[in-house]
Amino acid sequence: MNTERKAIGIDFGGTTIKSAVVHDGQLLAHGDVIDTQLHENSESLIEEMLGVIAALRVAHPEIEAVGVGLPGFVDSVNGIIHSLTNVAGWSEVPLRAILAERTGLTAIIENDAKAMAYGEWKYGAARNGRHVICITLGTGVGGALILDGRLFKGAQLAAGEIGHTTIDFRGAPGPYHNPGDLEGFVGNHRIAARAVALYRAAGREVPVEQCTPRDLEQAALDGDPVAAGLWEQIGVELGCALANAIWLLNPDVIVIGGGVARAGDLLFAPVRRTVQERTIGLIHENLRIVPAVLGNEAGIIGNATLALEAAGSR
Amino acid sequence: MNTERKAIGIDFGGTTIKSAVVHDGQLLAHGDVIDTQLHENSESLIEEMLGVIAALRVAHPEIEAVGVGLPGFVDSVNGIIHSLTNVAGWSEVPLRAILAERTGLTAIIENDAKAMAYGEWKYGAARNGRHVICITLGTGVGGALILDGRLFKGAQLAAGEIGHTTIDFRGAPGPYHNPGDLEGFVGNHRIAARAVALYRAAGREVPVEQCTPRDLEQAALDGDPVAAGLWEQIGVELGCALANAIWLLNPDVIVIGGGVARAGDLLFAPVRRTVQERTIGLIHENLRIVPAVLGNEAGIIGNATLALEAAGSR
Repeated sequence: MNTERKAIGIDFGGTTIKSAVVHDGQLLAHGDVIDTQLHENSESLIEEMLGVIAALRVAHPEIEAVGVGLPGFVDSVNGIIHSLTNVAGWSEVPLRAILAERTGLTAIIENDAKAMAYGEWKYGAARNGRHVICITLGTGVGGALILDGRLFKGAQLAAGEIGHTTIDFRGAPGPYHNPGDLEGFVGNHRIAARAVALYRAAGREVPVEQCTPRDLEQAALDGDPVAAGLWEQIGVELGCALANAIWLLNPDVIVIGGGVARAGDLLFAPVRRTVQERTIGLIHENLRIVPAVLGNEAGIIGNATLALEAAGSR
Repeated sequence: MNTERKAIGIDFGGTTIKSAVVHDGQLLAHGDVIDTQLHENSESLIEEMLGVIAALRVAHPEIEAVGVGLPGFVDSVNGIIHSLTNVAGWSEVPLRAILAERTGLTAIIENDAKAMAYGEWKYGAARNGRHVICITLGTGVGGALILDGRLFKGAQLAAGEIGHTTIDFRGAPGPYHNPGDLEGFVGNHRIAARAVALYRAAGREVPVEQCTPRDLEQAALDGDPVAAGLWEQIGVELGCALANAIWLLNPDVIVIGGGVARAGDLLFAPVRRTVQERTIGLIHENLRIVPAVLGNEAGIIGNATLALEAAGSR
C-alpha cells in the first residue's frame, strides 16, 4: 500500500463516536468526539458525523476514504446497517451510500469487532498472523476472525461471535438465547454481579459499582483472595471458550482486548493454562495468546485501513 | 475440470482400506479391499496398496493421480503422516513421496475427515455451499471446514475438530483432554454405554452389543421410549456443539455423516430445533443442516478429486 495515503477512521460506539485521520496505522489528528445518545435519530447524528469529517478534511485535504465501525449487525457488502446494539433509530440505514454521496470519498462500513480485529492484525498484536481469533471483553463479548490472511465474515457476515458460544449447555439463558454462553460468564455486568455474590458469601458487602474490572484487578493485586479467585474462574471460562475455537480453527494468534483484558497475568495466566490443558501440543505449542495493543485506536485504525483498501481496489 | 480425467481415491480406515477409480465424482471400478490390521508396519501395508493401485491401472491406464485419506494427524502440505489413530507403526511416514516415486502418479495425502468433507462439497450434500461445516459421527467424532469455498486447514493443518470442543466445561475428561467434549457425549461407545445405563434405570438389561446406533434407531422407530429419549438427548448435545460452530463461522451448510447420522429425523429433528433455539434468525434462517449423501464413498471421491486438482495445478 502507498504509505502516503490517508483515510478517516470512525469508531461508532454506544456512548461516543471517535474519529481520526489515519496514515499507515498512525493517528495524525483526532476529530471532535460525538455524544451518541444526544441524537434521537440517525439523520441528525449523520449530519454531525459529516461535520466532523469536513473539519478533518480542512487540515488534510488529501484524505481519500472514510471507514465507520458500528456495534451491531452491519451488512458491509451492501453498506447497510440492519440494527445497532444500544443505539435507537438505526434500522436499515444505507450509511455507506450516504457517506459516499455527501463526501465524495470512498466509504466503507463494518461491524466494530471486525474493524478492531483488522486493525490489530494489520498494525497491532496480531501482525504477521495468518489465522487470528480476536475477542473483545466488555459489557458484551465480541469477536472476529482473520482466516487465511483475510477478514472472515461468513454467510450472513455475522461470523466471529464467540461471546455467544456456550461452555455449559445446561447453563443459564444468555441475551441471544444460547444458555451458558461465554458472555453470560465474563461480560462486565456478570463479572460485577458475581463479585458482589462472592464477597457476600465471604461476609463482605461490596457495592456493585465498586466491582468494575479495574476495581477487581486492583483488589487482586492488593492480595484480596475473593477477587483473585474470580479472575482465576474468568480465565478458566474464557480459556474453555477459546479452546473450542482453537479445536475448530487451529489459529496461530489469539488477541484478547477490552477492559477485562487489561488485568494482564491475572487473566492471561489461567487462560493460557486452560488452553494448554484442553488442547494438544500440536495445536497450542506455536499458538500466541496476547493482549490487544492498539486499545481504543484499533477500531479507528482498522476502519481507516479497510477504507483505504476499498479505495485502492477501485 | 476436464471431466475425462481419472484418479484413484483411497479411503484408509483403521479396519479396512477401500479404493476406487473415480471420474467426475463417480466410482468406475473398486480396488481389492485391504485388511489394515493384518499389517504390523507401514512398509508391508504400503506394498499391498501399491499392488492395488497397479491392478486398477491395468484397466484404466489413463489414471493420472492418487489420493489417500487417513485417520490421524496428516501433514498434507509436506505429504507426511505424523501418526494414525488406532493403526500402529505409522510415525512420520512420508507417504506422498513414496507413492509418487513408486507409481509415477501425482499423489496427495489428506486427513480422512477433510477428504470426506471435500467429496461432499464437490459432489454431495454440500454442493454449492460457500461456508460448510462437516461432522462425522462414529467411534470418534471428526470434522472439517470449507470456508470461502476452500478446504480450511489452519496453522498446523489440524482445524475442524468439532468432536473435541466442549459443551460442558465442568464435564468428564475426553480422550484429548478436553472435559465435556462432544465426542464424550455422542461417540458410538458413549452412546452404547449411555443406552445400557438408561435401560438399566428403566429396569431392563440390554447387552452393550445390542446398543449400536442401528439397534437404537430400530428400537426408537418401534416405539421404545428409552431409545427415543436417548436420540433426543444426542440431538440436543450435537445441536449445542453445532450452534457454537455456527456462532463462530456463520456457515450456509452443515453436513452430518457417519453411522449415527443414518437415524434420520430421530437425530436431525432435535439437532435443527436446538440450533434454532440457540442462535438468531439472521444466521439460522438460511442455514441447511443435511445428512451426508455419499456415505462411505465420500472419502474415496474427495481424495481422488483433491489428487486430480493437485495434478492439474502442476
